[in-house]
Amino acid sequence: MLNCPTLPDIREAAERIKPYIKRTPVLTCEGLDCMVGARLFFKCENFQKVGAFKFRGATNAVFSLPEIEVVRGVATHSSGNHGAALALAARNRGVKAYVVMPRTSAKIKKEAVAGYGAEITFCEPTLQARERTLAKVIEKTGATFVHPYNDYRIIGGQGTAALELLEEVPDLEVVMAPVGGGGLLSGTALTVSELSPQTLVIGAEPEGADDAYRSMQEGRIIPSIHPHTVADGLLTSLGEYTFAIIRERIHQIVTVSDEAIIEAMRHIWERMKIVVEPSAAVPFGVLLERKIDLAGKRIGIIISGGNVDLERLPWLSTSNE
Amino acid sequence: MLNCPTLPDIREAAERIKPYIKRTPVLTCEGLDCMVGARLFFKCENFQKVGAFKFRGATNAVFSLPEIEVVRGVATHSSGNHGAALALAARNRGVKAYVVMPRTSAKIKKEAVAGYGAEITFCEPTLQARERTLAKVIEKTGATFVHPYNDYRIIGGQGTAALELLEEVPDLEVVMAPVGGGGLLSGTALTVSELSPQTLVIGAEPEGADDAYRSMQEGRIIPSIHPHTVADGLLTSLGEYTFAIIRERIHQIVTVSDEAIIEAMRHIWERMKIVVEPSAAVPFGVLLERKIDLAGKRIGIIISGGNVDLERLPWLSTSNE
Repeated sequence: MLNCPTLPDIREAAERIKPYIKRTPVLTCEGLDCMVGARLFFKCENFQKVGAFKFRGATNAVFSLPEIEVVRGVATHSSGNHGAALALAARNRGVKAYVVMPRTSAKIKKEAVAGYGAEITFCEPTLQARERTLAKVIEKTGATFVHPYNDYRIIGGQGTAALELLEEVPDLEVVMAPVGGGGLLSGTALTVSELSPQTLVIGAEPEGADDAYRSMQEGRIIPSIHPHTVADGLLTSLGEYTFAIIRERIHQIVTVSDEAIIEAMRHIWERMKIVVEPSAAVPFGVLLERKIDLAGKRIGIIISGGNVDLERLPWLSTSNE
Repeated sequence: MLNCPTLPDIREAAERIKPYIKRTPVLTCEGLDCMVGARLFFKCENFQKVGAFKFRGATNAVFSLPEIEVVRGVATHSSGNHGAALALAARNRGVKAYVVMPRTSAKIKKEAVAGYGAEITFCEPTLQARERTLAKVIEKTGATFVHPYNDYRIIGGQGTAALELLEEVPDLEVVMAPVGGGGLLSGTALTVSELSPQTLVIGAEPEGADDAYRSMQEGRIIPSIHPHTVADGLLTSLGEYTFAIIRERIHQIVTVSDEAIIEAMRHIWERMKIVVEPSAAVPFGVLLERKIDLAGKRIGIIISGGNVDLERLPWLSTSNE
């Protein structure tokens, strides 16, 4: 796909991935509504296969590649969820997946990628090491690179979560999603801006990895140099495709402290009784910190994933370490 | 209600409580299905208001009491979920709730009961202390006692969870529920045996609190003397009403080790991404231990609740204490 996805492309993606993905529920919770004074609708992609929305984009990418491009497999670098998603999508299509992972990735994420049958190559935890290692893997195997977010097929696939959300709750005033590389936020923005133009789309970003916020201010991509946040799924910086869409289609990026992210995560576990990873708690963290006034609004929130190491919960870190 | 509830009574209870309770989702998880070789349907009462099925029974009891009996409030003793449930049900009806709680109750449960506006009286953690303290509270206030489980209105209310489950998934071969005092299991047995007589009902009980198992063997109530299990919601013993129903209507009680309960709880958190309390993991623990052969069956499991202290997860206990 060479052009930016339109609503018909996203609908087509939804049909393409339907046999493989889970239609995730939209949950509500009065307790959380009361805390922030708004009406919240959580699209639970933590219940998605592989535990994250990433499976939508990966499935769309793998199943829209022509046979000749996938026959020698697909490859990517990923600290976790995209790697697992690509691995399962490739297995579903019957082709090989090669995943380059930093040695420092969470154990649960390494096991997931391996469990779906991908061939893992470990590397140092830097972008340069990832890219160099991936180049070698591709040279050796002839696999096709599927970028974690800066790819229109990935972006279109991620946009299907908002499509389902709006089908179920059409009258949302705001839709919020976390932003790391921007695949989820840009896909969400495409869907929402075309299907429900009056609905605001707001990106939520950790203060310690605020490249999207700064890029929006400056009008050009400002990559994160040394991002540091508990939201380990949001360390990457925007790509040119995701930035262009986000710049054009979203209302605002709001940043949030790690403290509020951890507090938000804990409230979601305690009140909603669902397991979400820190990155998924970032939008609710923004609401808790009340940096923008959304009082009384009907707000859709995309819960991005639920892959978290149950031995190392952030609110236990002082007593455990 | 002086007679054991019939299916029409349970349907009436469902109508009575409908404006107050949440219709909880039925979730599935391929990962867990694979682990035990069966097809599982989880009725998620951890998402119920107050975080447990108990709110169904308490609401049914409070709203079926005649005005003259509730005007001076309702009272109970409870280590947690029933107390919170009664407190919220009473608030919904606009009457006072008095809850006697052992000092040793989990902090999260004390806060919940207080948060719903009940007046708490703390006592020593023995059944005698609970009953003595409750008698004093009732004498002083004139409140009406609502037993946590040995009450037909409570039992009928708990039976509405299975009613919703069977409406959504009618062709279940087995329905499983945990058993403590037996309110949930007996209500489930009433609903399932009348609505779907070919479906087996199986009770799941911790080895360290196996009074229901032993009572079924002996044909009379054998109370637990010093129950000890991680499943802190299942420490109570059967009552005469719950025992009579269970004895007549259920297929089998199966016990399970605390190790398997903790393993089951962790798998449910990790794979399904939902927060469940240890008691709620007991039926899946039975399947993990494979003490009975249910391979290939379509099994409904009632997830009883999700109120757990997030500072004290059982799989972290060695490193935390």
